Amino acid sequence: MAGVTAALETVASRLVAPEFAAGTVWLVGAGPGDPGLLTLHAAHALAVADVVLHDALVSPDVLALAPRARLESVGKRAGGERTPQLRINERLIRLARDGLRVVRLKGGDPLVFGRGAEETLALAAAGVRFRIIPGISAGIGGTAAAGIPATHRGLAHSVAFVTGHDTSGALPDDVDWGALARGADVLVLYMALRRIGEIADRLLSAGREATEPVAFVTEATTSRQSVQVTTLAQAAAIAADIPRDVPTLIIVGPVVALRPLIAAWQDAAPMSCVPVSQRATA
Amino acid sequence: MAGVTAALETVASRLVAPEFAAGTVWLVGAGPGDPGLLTLHAAHALAVADVVLHDALVSPDVLALAPRARLESVGKRAGGERTPQLRINERLIRLARDGLRVVRLKGGDPLVFGRGAEETLALAAAGVRFRIIPGISAGIGGTAAAGIPATHRGLAHSVAFVTGHDTSGALPDDVDWGALARGADVLVLYMALRRIGEIADRLLSAGREATEPVAFVTEATTSRQSVQVTTLAQAAAIAADIPRDVPTLIIVGPVVALRPLIAAWQDAAPMSCVPVSQRATA
Repeated sequence: MAGVTAALETVASRLVAPEFAAGTVWLVGAGPGDPGLLTLHAAHALAVADVVLHDALVSPDVLALAPRARLESVGKRAGGERTPQLRINERLIRLARDGLRVVRLKGGDPLVFGRGAEETLALAAAGVRFRIIPGISAGIGGTAAAGIPATHRGLAHSVAFVTGHDTSGALPDDVDWGALARGADVLVLYMALRRIGEIADRLLSAGREATEPVAFVTEATTSRQSVQVTTLAQAAAIAADIPRDVPTLIIVGPVVALRPLIAAWQDAAPMSCVPVSQRATA
Repeated sequence: MAGVTAALETVASRLVAPEFAAGTVWLVGAGPGDPGLLTLHAAHALAVADVVLHDALVSPDVLALAPRARLESVGKRAGGERTPQLRINERLIRLARDGLRVVRLKGGDPLVFGRGAEETLALAAAGVRFRIIPGISAGIGGTAAAGIPATHRGLAHSVAFVTGHDTSGALPDDVDWGALARGADVLVLYMALRRIGEIADRLLSAGREATEPVAFVTEATTSRQSVQVTTLAQAAAIAADIPRDVPTLIIVGPVVALRPLIAAWQDAAPMSCVPVSQRATA
């Protein structure tokens, strides 16, 4: 769509951006999927990066925005094994010390359940300068794309983002679900597909209603996005039918009931990016 | 900086974006201040918009990204009065019915404490199609820019975003601060400067420690950003010295203690945009 390109080129021609210095690492949020949800800082970083260490879940449309960079996937491998966090930290430090412009590209926002804080601490300890480029977290972008407002006057004065599993895959044992049930009007659950039955039980025990609406948003903001709305009592049954490796956001709260009013009038098509024909990968 | 411009132009030339149709309204998140935190969708929308209804707090650097649009400020006026929400809704509907491409530009994210949900419901009721373009909420972008991770493995499995006042300016009476104190590892408080003393009292009563670290981030992500770190016991005293009209984010939680380790190695300069020399305003 030529008009779009021309419009963005006009913007680019008038922006002055801070330098992405050689020998530094930028931790960049890739957003939930739609490349149009990358920030201008993120697009700039990808465009000038020498190397991009990316999570496996980052979409090809987003990676296409880094045409000159070498790509290294550090996420889940074919066999289901993840690159250990310490090896990722060491790799970032090594590449920076080699004088490269290094992008660490993470789904969503780097500091919302992404272990980005550990990476910044490792870089700081090694004396490597870095920059954090925030991203649209799934809890922000996925809710909006589903037509579910994260907050709404009169319905939601607070929204809590909570992770549904710890590093072992179990329900985190230091989350007080009862207190969250009473304190947070809206609960946005990350990586909670396998644990939603236990979570729902705890929320119900703490007084949330069995009929409270719950939304499952899979592959949010992509052309494959799907939304299912159910109740807290039925949530576990819905979850059982969603494949475990499909990125899923779960939203619990009265705002879910607004979805039919909003979604019918909402446009939400993603951007796409022309693929890179040839590039180095690792 | 010519390299930056060229890099972003390269990106723009390969992106395919959905059409911003005449007669529709895009609710666009402007992010916390740095124009580099606008999304590509937002930059595209601003570049092609006919008219932009913007909050008064949106920075001139962001508005400069909409060179051809007529600007209408609907935020706080010189006398301190705000445009009533119903008049904003009516204006959006009228402009869309006039066949214009209308951007409603809101600070941060449109659906996080921005009354954007009310605007979508008004548009839907009037049969006006719209799109929600998520933005970097201050709770995401302002924390990162201050070197404070919103979550951190072992320290924070949950983060709650909470508004510190209702429409009358009082502490919302249906927020259960005690439950939030027990349930949320990190509390990110929006618009809470005038009420932080009351909030701190409630958090302390519910068992949070008097020595728990608290950060005040003013004008987050701009070149004027400042960060003060204190304790829950001292928070009200710090707040008293911050002018009431300065946008302030307040972060309560153990992650605040990581700031000295992170901030010393962090770069965070914002982008800027060459101003528009002449334009129509209203």
